[in-house]
Amino acid sequence: MSRSRLTPEREAELFEAVLELVCEVGYDSLTMDAVAARTRSSKATLYRQWHSKPELVATALQHGAGPGANQVDTGSLRGDFRAMLAQTNAKEMEKDSALLRALVHAVHTNPDLYDALRTKVIAPEEAALRTVIDRAVERGEISASNPAREFVPHMLFGLFFAVQMIEDRIPTVDFMTRYVDAVVLPALEAR
Amino acid sequence: MSRSRLTPEREAELFEAVLELVCEVGYDSLTMDAVAARTRSSKATLYRQWHSKPELVATALQHGAGPGANQVDTGSLRGDFRAMLAQTNAKEMEKDSALLRALVHAVHTNPDLYDALRTKVIAPEEAALRTVIDRAVERGEISASNPAREFVPHMLFGLFFAVQMIEDRIPTVDFMTRYVDAVVLPALEAR
Repeated sequence: MSRSRLTPEREAELFEAVLELVCEVGYDSLTMDAVAARTRSSKATLYRQWHSKPELVATALQHGAGPGANQVDTGSLRGDFRAMLAQTNAKEMEKDSALLRALVHAVHTNPDLYDALRTKVIAPEEAALRTVIDRAVERGEISASNPAREFVPHMLFGLFFAVQMIEDRIPTVDFMTRYVDAVVLPALEAR
Repeated sequence: MSRSRLTPEREAELFEAVLELVCEVGYDSLTMDAVAARTRSSKATLYRQWHSKPELVATALQHGAGPGANQVDTGSLRGDFRAMLAQTNAKEMEKDSALLRALVHAVHTNPDLYDALRTKVIAPEEAALRTVIDRAVERGEISASNPAREFVPHMLFGLFFAVQMIEDRIPTVDFMTRYVDAVVLPALEAR
């Protein structure tokens, strides 16, 4: 008997439902009962396959679609930021924001959950940003020794949370574009 | 009979315990039972006084000490940022981080809680930052029309969350100082 008796399609559906539930109720309030009800599974099946709530949520994160691999390369740093933002659709932005918001407390005390979030959601975005920045350095648009380079992921990830705390809303693409122009590019002294 | 039968000292103690519990278990997992146990009160007392969990937590936030009112005024923008960071002690930074982290999801769906957090924790910090920036404009250190001005609170609040998501730790004062020098001051084109 194989470990999994779920088809890949059914599994993908289940993982999506888990992440939806996390966004709706928060990680702490998520119960295996709610997952079972939402996905029309038995709790026995859930526990047999994933053993615990943290393992189920971490696995759901690992299997999520993740950010699109469409690397941008427009020939300028400003152009690359614009293109990255243009790829972002409002619905995905809302989904990612909700997920980060729902997990930021839980990951702090749950290393497995943190690793899953880091690997699946944060690291790919960070890598995409670093590629864009490295190319700007190669083109001579920004200095290799500019100390703001290491903080580009912080400037952009932080914005998601800051806008929610300060203005109680999700940042729009327009807002992020203004922030990139007013803060990120000047800090990098982009020429 | 007065509405409150708790002394102000007892109330302050209770509010502090509520915020500690929020930081430990998260808002969603906080129960009135846990508050009653931690504060050695009866649940009946808690409900009689505060009616509901959101009301109790919002009131606890409202009554919290809030950030120190020590306005800094060193004569330069860099000096003011340095002085603000020097006032921050590591323990308070950890406490504030834990509170923001614990509440960021809950406030999104609970307007009363958001208002309490905004009024008590966010607005005073934002006001202190704006005072520092306005003085730098008056001194001619930064241009009144610099578009990064409006984003100073975002750059700094966001950093709390970004460091936790990207590096799984609380930002240190040293880290924040490097960020101010590398990002905030250059974005403001401080002279």
